[in-house]
Amino acid sequence: MNWLPQYTARIERAISEHSFPEKPVGLYQPLEYFMQIGGKRIRPILTLLAAELFDHDAEGVMPQAIGLELFHNFTLIHDDIMDEAPLRRNMETLHQKYDLNTGILSGDVLLIKAYQQICRTESEKLDEVLELFNRTAVEVCEGQQMDMDFESREDVTVDEYIEMIRLKTSVLLGCSLEMGALLSGASKEDSINLYDFGVNIGIAFQIRDDILDLYADPKTFGKQVGGDIMANKKTILYLSALKNGSREQLEVLKQLKDETDLELKVGRTRELFEALNIQAVCKQIMNEYYERAIQALESISVPVENKSKLKELAVYLIDRDI
Amino acid sequence: MNWLPQYTARIERAISEHSFPEKPVGLYQPLEYFMQIGGKRIRPILTLLAAELFDHDAEGVMPQAIGLELFHNFTLIHDDIMDEAPLRRNMETLHQKYDLNTGILSGDVLLIKAYQQICRTESEKLDEVLELFNRTAVEVCEGQQMDMDFESREDVTVDEYIEMIRLKTSVLLGCSLEMGALLSGASKEDSINLYDFGVNIGIAFQIRDDILDLYADPKTFGKQVGGDIMANKKTILYLSALKNGSREQLEVLKQLKDETDLELKVGRTRELFEALNIQAVCKQIMNEYYERAIQALESISVPVENKSKLKELAVYLIDRDI
Repeated sequence: MNWLPQYTARIERAISEHSFPEKPVGLYQPLEYFMQIGGKRIRPILTLLAAELFDHDAEGVMPQAIGLELFHNFTLIHDDIMDEAPLRRNMETLHQKYDLNTGILSGDVLLIKAYQQICRTESEKLDEVLELFNRTAVEVCEGQQMDMDFESREDVTVDEYIEMIRLKTSVLLGCSLEMGALLSGASKEDSINLYDFGVNIGIAFQIRDDILDLYADPKTFGKQVGGDIMANKKTILYLSALKNGSREQLEVLKQLKDETDLELKVGRTRELFEALNIQAVCKQIMNEYYERAIQALESISVPVENKSKLKELAVYLIDRDI
Repeated sequence: MNWLPQYTARIERAISEHSFPEKPVGLYQPLEYFMQIGGKRIRPILTLLAAELFDHDAEGVMPQAIGLELFHNFTLIHDDIMDEAPLRRNMETLHQKYDLNTGILSGDVLLIKAYQQICRTESEKLDEVLELFNRTAVEVCEGQQMDMDFESREDVTVDEYIEMIRLKTSVLLGCSLEMGALLSGASKEDSINLYDFGVNIGIAFQIRDDILDLYADPKTFGKQVGGDIMANKKTILYLSALKNGSREQLEVLKQLKDETDLELKVGRTRELFEALNIQAVCKQIMNEYYERAIQALESISVPVENKSKLKELAVYLIDRDI
């Protein structure tokens, strides 16, 4: 994975070269601020890697790659408002640093700027690229709505949860890859396989995220272990416990939601999860999606050596030894 | 203008036939609600009229016409949040009826749905159509930002005000017309003239709106006469008074801003405006934009009888006898 920093640097350079208009300052300066908060830039990197998978020049797909990163940041700005989040990557969120109206309107114009970048596509491919992007953008909104709906629902199933994370985060990874493929003249079949690789890796990654929140090594984990339990989040661990627990265990889980001693709350929940073998159950689901991703990647009709970076990235993101 | 209701009815029918997905209910049901609040539907009607101007079938531009109306409604939903408006056309605004998060997210997906409609364009014309729409959409956001900036500024000029209303509302009228022209195979020159017609009519209409707010006949005016003065709005009347007033008059205007007796406030301001002949000054500006609009329309190379509906609409919207 020693190649990854180079790709990140290329994206950072392209983002810094993509400048917003100077005026109105109140509209665009907040976006300059937000875009430099940074992040893993995984979506545009996927677009570059997709181009290279089909022996296409990565620089040729840079406008669309940046467009996808702008879109991702639009969703972050508006999600931060909806989640009332004060911080992102230890920096103030946009609406926190400025105000609500700035968060809404700067977010809006960023979505349109994303379209402008994505429209920098040769005419023959534009409708296909936009069909993919429009569909994905709608799905991301639908996923965010499902996520918000889940907060007030007590009957969310594991399947619904997976559908939510598929829409909210995974389809954009698939889209980033498929867009690179379409722009590189890949066949429809290869493009769809690459999309499926991205979506399934995305789902596996989100499940891993849920597992790590409770089972990560506290010494190396950046956040507080058990934070999801403390916040009563409906993770795949919790939903799997709901699915597999006895009536008594569900009663205990229900009571633990109001437990104010957080250490006790996390400890007791963990005991209950262990009795139900929840970590293994969820790792099993994660592995299924990982395997589907790898299978989709293997089906793509390019030389196996072209796939090495995407394969490495999948191994790195999922890290099955958790 | 007896032809107008037919066009409105066609748009209403197309809107009611355009259904949103059923799920997630929390995302799309608010949009069904908001779209049936109604309105003049002037933007999509302009797109149909533009098609007919060039002897093109209006039905062929209906997807894009609806897309422009969806876009307009997206801006209304988010503007209502920013303005903290509880009512629109005597109905609850979307965020008022539901909540802030619904207002943000349903608005977002409506913008994407607008793009989906506009993308229902044949491949050869798609990039031109999107270039126009992307540019316009960015400008509308910039206009909204300028409008918000003006609230806290005391040095806004008449020219800046006209630039704000051009961006916030007029370019979308121009865009609605030009899109109809592009889709109907009009020449670049004719398309630009039609765009200019729309933008200039839009500016004239906004100026007329400002004038009417103070000088309408109270018996027939739907709103309270002088409402803009009561709310200390920086209308073109107020900004023209700032521009033309003596130092003493500016001092009076400044003091009147804090006047709590609203009848007195409107009366005194009106006296001051009359001393400066503000109504005539603003009508003069309005007429200049109206004339520019008519000139642009006259320059379009189609038979004069094709232009009759647009001409009538311009006369109707501006109604120079105020």
